Amino acid sequence: MTIRISVINPNTTSSMTALIEGEARRVAGPGTVVTGRTPAMGPASIESHYDEALAVPGLLEVIREDAEADAFVLACFGDPGLDAAREVASRPVIGIAEAAMKTASLLGRSFSVVTTLSRTVGRAWDLARVYGLERQCAGVHACDIPVLELEEDRDRTYGVILAFAKTAMAQDGSDAIVLGCAGMAGLPELLTAELGVPVVDGVAAATVMAEGLVRQGLRPSTHGELAPPPPKAYTGLLAGFGRR
Amino acid sequence: MTIRISVINPNTTSSMTALIEGEARRVAGPGTVVTGRTPAMGPASIESHYDEALAVPGLLEVIREDAEADAFVLACFGDPGLDAAREVASRPVIGIAEAAMKTASLLGRSFSVVTTLSRTVGRAWDLARVYGLERQCAGVHACDIPVLELEEDRDRTYGVILAFAKTAMAQDGSDAIVLGCAGMAGLPELLTAELGVPVVDGVAAATVMAEGLVRQGLRPSTHGELAPPPPKAYTGLLAGFGRR
Amino acid sequence: MTIRISVINPNTTSSMTALIEGEARRVAGPGTVVTGRTPAMGPASIESHYDEALAVPGLLEVIREDAEADAFVLACFGDPGLDAAREVASRPVIGIAEAAMKTASLLGRSFSVVTTLSRTVGRAWDLARVYGLERQCAGVHACDIPVLELEEDRDRTYGVILAFAKTAMAQDGSDAIVLGCAGMAGLPELLTAELGVPVVDGVAAATVMAEGLVRQGLRPSTHGELAPPPPKAYTGLLAGFGRR
Amino acid sequence: MTIRISVINPNTTSSMTALIEGEARRVAGPGTVVTGRTPAMGPASIESHYDEALAVPGLLEVIREDAEADAFVLACFGDPGLDAAREVASRPVIGIAEAAMKTASLLGRSFSVVTTLSRTVGRAWDLARVYGLERQCAGVHACDIPVLELEEDRDRTYGVILAFAKTAMAQDGSDAIVLGCAGMAGLPELLTAELGVPVVDGVAAATVMAEGLVRQGLRPSTHGELAPPPPKAYTGLLAGFGRR
Amino acid sequence: MTIRISVINPNTTSSMTALIEGEARRVAGPGTVVTGRTPAMGPASIESHYDEALAVPGLLEVIREDAEADAFVLACFGDPGLDAAREVASRPVIGIAEAAMKTASLLGRSFSVVTTLSRTVGRAWDLARVYGLERQCAGVHACDIPVLELEEDRDRTYGVILAFAKTAMAQDGSDAIVLGCAGMAGLPELLTAELGVPVVDGVAAATVMAEGLVRQGLRPSTHGELAPPPPKAYTGLLAGFGRR
Amino acid sequence: MTIRISVINPNTTSSMTALIEGEARRVAGPGTVVTGRTPAMGPASIESHYDEALAVPGLLEVIREDAEADAFVLACFGDPGLDAAREVASRPVIGIAEAAMKTASLLGRSFSVVTTLSRTVGRAWDLARVYGLERQCAGVHACDIPVLELEEDRDRTYGVILAFAKTAMAQDGSDAIVLGCAGMAGLPELLTAELGVPVVDGVAAATVMAEGLVRQGLRPSTHGELAPPPPKAYTGLLAGFGRR
Repeated sequence: MTIRISVINPNTTSSMTALIEGEARRVAGPGTVVTGRTPAMGPASIESHYDEALAVPGLLEVIREDAEADAFVLACFGDPGLDAAREVASRPVIGIAEAAMKTASLLGRSFSVVTTLSRTVGRAWDLARVYGLERQCAGVHACDIPVLELEEDRDRTYGVILAFAKTAMAQDGSDAIVLGCAGMAGLPELLTAELGVPVVDGVAAATVMAEGLVRQGLRPSTHGELAPPPPKAYTGLLAGFGRR
Repeated sequence: MTIRISVINPNTTSSMTALIEGEARRVAGPGTVVTGRTPAMGPASIESHYDEALAVPGLLEVIREDAEADAFVLACFGDPGLDAAREVASRPVIGIAEAAMKTASLLGRSFSVVTTLSRTVGRAWDLARVYGLERQCAGVHACDIPVLELEEDRDRTYGVILAFAKTAMAQDGSDAIVLGCAGMAGLPELLTAELGVPVVDGVAAATVMAEGLVRQGLRPSTHGELAPPPPKAYTGLLAGFGRR
Repeated sequence: MTIRISVINPNTTSSMTALIEGEARRVAGPGTVVTGRTPAMGPASIESHYDEALAVPGLLEVIREDAEADAFVLACFGDPGLDAAREVASRPVIGIAEAAMKTASLLGRSFSVVTTLSRTVGRAWDLARVYGLERQCAGVHACDIPVLELEEDRDRTYGVILAFAKTAMAQDGSDAIVLGCAGMAGLPELLTAELGVPVVDGVAAATVMAEGLVRQGLRPSTHGELAPPPPKAYTGLLAGFGRR
Repeated sequence: MTIRISVINPNTTSSMTALIEGEARRVAGPGTVVTGRTPAMGPASIESHYDEALAVPGLLEVIREDAEADAFVLACFGDPGLDAAREVASRPVIGIAEAAMKTASLLGRSFSVVTTLSRTVGRAWDLARVYGLERQCAGVHACDIPVLELEEDRDRTYGVILAFAKTAMAQDGSDAIVLGCAGMAGLPELLTAELGVPVVDGVAAATVMAEGLVRQGLRPSTHGELAPPPPKAYTGLLAGFGRR
Repeated sequence: MTIRISVINPNTTSSMTALIEGEARRVAGPGTVVTGRTPAMGPASIESHYDEALAVPGLLEVIREDAEADAFVLACFGDPGLDAAREVASRPVIGIAEAAMKTASLLGRSFSVVTTLSRTVGRAWDLARVYGLERQCAGVHACDIPVLELEEDRDRTYGVILAFAKTAMAQDGSDAIVLGCAGMAGLPELLTAELGVPVVDGVAAATVMAEGLVRQGLRPSTHGELAPPPPKAYTGLLAGFGRR
Repeated sequence: MTIRISVINPNTTSSMTALIEGEARRVAGPGTVVTGRTPAMGPASIESHYDEALAVPGLLEVIREDAEADAFVLACFGDPGLDAAREVASRPVIGIAEAAMKTASLLGRSFSVVTTLSRTVGRAWDLARVYGLERQCAGVHACDIPVLELEEDRDRTYGVILAFAKTAMAQDGSDAIVLGCAGMAGLPELLTAELGVPVVDGVAAATVMAEGLVRQGLRPSTHGELAPPPPKAYTGLLAGFGRR
């Protein structure tokens, strides 16, 4: 059985898509085909509620047009548009925040999140609550590197994240680290080795979770609120979203 | 002091905008100017996570272009894009679900929500949790009238909602009713009289709450995550949202 | 429509009543008449559970004897006797802690409370929990100025509260301030200007909330536990409370 | 060591005081002296928030004047004025709702409360939450017998409570019963025998809990908010409460 | 890379081990070797807290003696001894209740659990709370078939579980089913087809989760409480557990 | 009435049994007979989830063989096997963590726990949550003295615990201390005197709680999940546990 996983980068920066695709491939099982996808509309990076909201049309369009994929990964730590994505996909969709936190919950008492900007800290806490992991999330720490700078100097990025991870563990008394941005993909192996605790990257975690659902033959329930949305008129710039 | 409140209908159906505007005017104080606004893009009604996500660009555009308003009301019971709206508005923005639930919490032990479609029940519960009113929300009941049919036959609508409200109170042991759709505006007075308990309409509740914030001189905090979003490149259909 | 709001100072110090009345008038809408009320029995200030419990008979008496008011504000941050007050008033009664916290929840991610005495910190947390805002309340900080000294040297009071507010925001990572004592009325405008974040005073917040309920025609539900209390024999000093 | 327990009936009906005193004596250890106390002011029974608030001055007076007691039991299921009582007593004070619920929590998965009037159901739930037993409290059921009628026809009272207890267990899936009114004292032995599950009476539970604290030499902490209240001027009918 | 998963049946009935092994193999990826393990001591089935506690030594012994496995699945829905197992394994250990509930949480708004005996219902709720899924778990329903009878007549078992699943969905308003016993392995495909909603079996869910952790190179944290237990003297029947 | 309390030391170190027995006798009422019990199998001390799980068979055996006791105390702060113990005892069983925390909750706003090893801190938090006291537990502090060293130099032990208790109160803002290990029995009187706040020892707290249940005639409910476990075959080393 070939399993096809589309890993969607919800922002429009294609170098980040390549990074994410690589991380997903590293952990995918034999016989799984991973494809990175970049939306045709939306923000270059996601660093506010505003950006997050405006990234959703683009990623929904990707899903609507991808009939091949068996499952999708949404590679932004805010899990933007996750419920809407599940409605239109009718196939498994995994957000990387959900995947990373639920994976970390299998590995220790509590985890600390190391994320990018301070203004996204509240959003990470909101997600921890929605996913029922408020007690296991011991802290969320922003290193205040803008998303697109994560890629520019990987050595500096590594050093900063390592330092924040150490501080987080000491302050929070946690025993695992969650990387709170898709742009940190590629770092967990080195960090795990150096920190001596599990370091979870959401892209990797979501990829194996998506594969696992496909192997079990499980899809989002269409019995209740995740059934396909009722068709209707859409107007203006977004008129295309009304078509099926 | 003249207070200007823009009441945004997040869907694109202008008859509903008129209905909402009327309800807001009914409760606004002397000297307050209420204006209804309809977005130029998006779905004709909001009945899924998909619709809700795709209503957000349109309402954000309305806010961005309305420099006159002292405060905004978002008149959809899903409170779509509320955080993003507060970021770009830098003025009070009140969602009608938040307003209705927080108002009902002042009036009794617990309230029941009567909403439109079954598939939105979960969303109403999510909001009750986010607003800290999970314990006071005693039940959410869907009358399964599609949003745009609410207007068509107001007598039938009234009768159905009355029946659901009675059932809700009996089943839930609640002592107040929250109307869970902007399209139910205009009904609370009659319902309050007939049911003998407070019936809260979110449009009315949000309008007086918005006025109250303006009178107190309070705006969303720009100290943390609700600061204006950092400017950046946007591409494709949504390129206009990158401009300031 | 003239709206009459009685603002009750639950302690017996009339200079504080005047201060509170002034703050309420500052934010009340055109056509609203605000009257301050001082009870005829009880403690000179409220600084313990004991004081709070013994302030309740006096404020209930004020409500019983005030047939003119359309709504009441209870101007003590412990919201003493709020449920009992709603039972006997059959009109809206708003406590300033409830009002302040619910207002702050509209303005940012989280708020810090600056209150008077350390021994009341636990009570403020209890109220945050009862009102469902435990997660948004990021900290409660006592400046340890006794209630009646707040008025004596307003400059010193202002300086101390400013300093505590700054510390609170830094420690708690909050983006709004709630003033945790009716005796701090009059300070929020200056503090908002200096701190650059919303500063919420409960007396102002409760006043506009009370007006808003009156405009919506909403009263406490008499369907359940807030129905008027059943009449019965009262004895001793409190015999008068049995009469209707 | 003689242990002296004062069991305070917070209402002014002395026949109920006698009933309560008897139940406390039934379970007290050898060498423990139990005395029932009736306040000199307040309501004849407690059936509303209003009654509950106005019962507090009377019970605080009883505590202030009783220098002999080693510990106090507050025998009303609303636990009125419990924090204030602990402040002025500086000795253990146990409320019967707290005692009954914490005792039931040692005996099974969950308990149902059978109480008197429907309008007190919410208060019972509030207490379950405050005491951290919201999950173990599976239901609160009102038999709608007014408090003072409980005594009038004990056979009928027993029959009604038995029936409600059976219904409660079936509906709630609970495995223990808590009697939700001091006036139900004297019934638990018979009910336990007939129902085949533990039936907890708060007066009995609080009495042994009070004894246990005395034997351990434990008193309310005076380090924080339960320290004796600061002295101050009291006026009007309640002027006597300012004296020490 | 060959991945070796040991699937431990915590009871001593080897026919059940075979059933579980088959279900795990059905979903395992290419290149994964699944081995069923039966303990040498303990109860024939787990149907009480007593049985569950006494199953733990046997499963810990299996883990201690299995140096080959890359990860372990604990195939009893009570997740017995999960923390202790993680301490001694130093490799991933997944309990089937945790796996099933966390998997169901990816597929819909809420799930219902269909389990064996009524007396285990409380334990399932406890686990839902520990795993942060109390809100998503909409109900736990016992079909009251003893564990070892599940195998005896698979047609009858299928029919009973199907009926309970339908009832559960109707009563709970849930949109997914979790099978609450390892002995129900093998049924999810048929049930999913007939019910039209996702049906999650914990053995399958845990197997793919275990594989996923191995592929990511993640192990339980040894930084905190899951570090290997300190060696010490053990006496009596259990003396062997002190040796390393 | 003679009340017989068996105080079970869940580890196999008999000097600790003697210490615990003495503490229980100090607080037991006149006419109560306290007997310390040491299991015949299991670990010399309990310092990991592994030790805790393997202590359970030994303590269950003690209960099964002790037909004389009216109630049992489990004297390990992890409350190991508490539910299983209640099933087989059919008489009251009180864990010292449950007893200590529920007792401390009667004495102040919040308590801090001082325990032995850092790796048990998480377990103490878990129990606080299970017992509904998560909010009142203000902190858990490990002094990192191994359990069996607590007895070796009581002066040093006292000094270390005193220092940790002072730090805990300052950091946590708590007003009571809970001693988080049975091996700290004997210290609370001195500590209470020196710290000026209530210091609760679980062995003492559990002993009076057990007596209280016996005096009230209350036993664990056999109606639901705490009914005696169904008999069945046990194999291997644990075969004896299948016999009744």
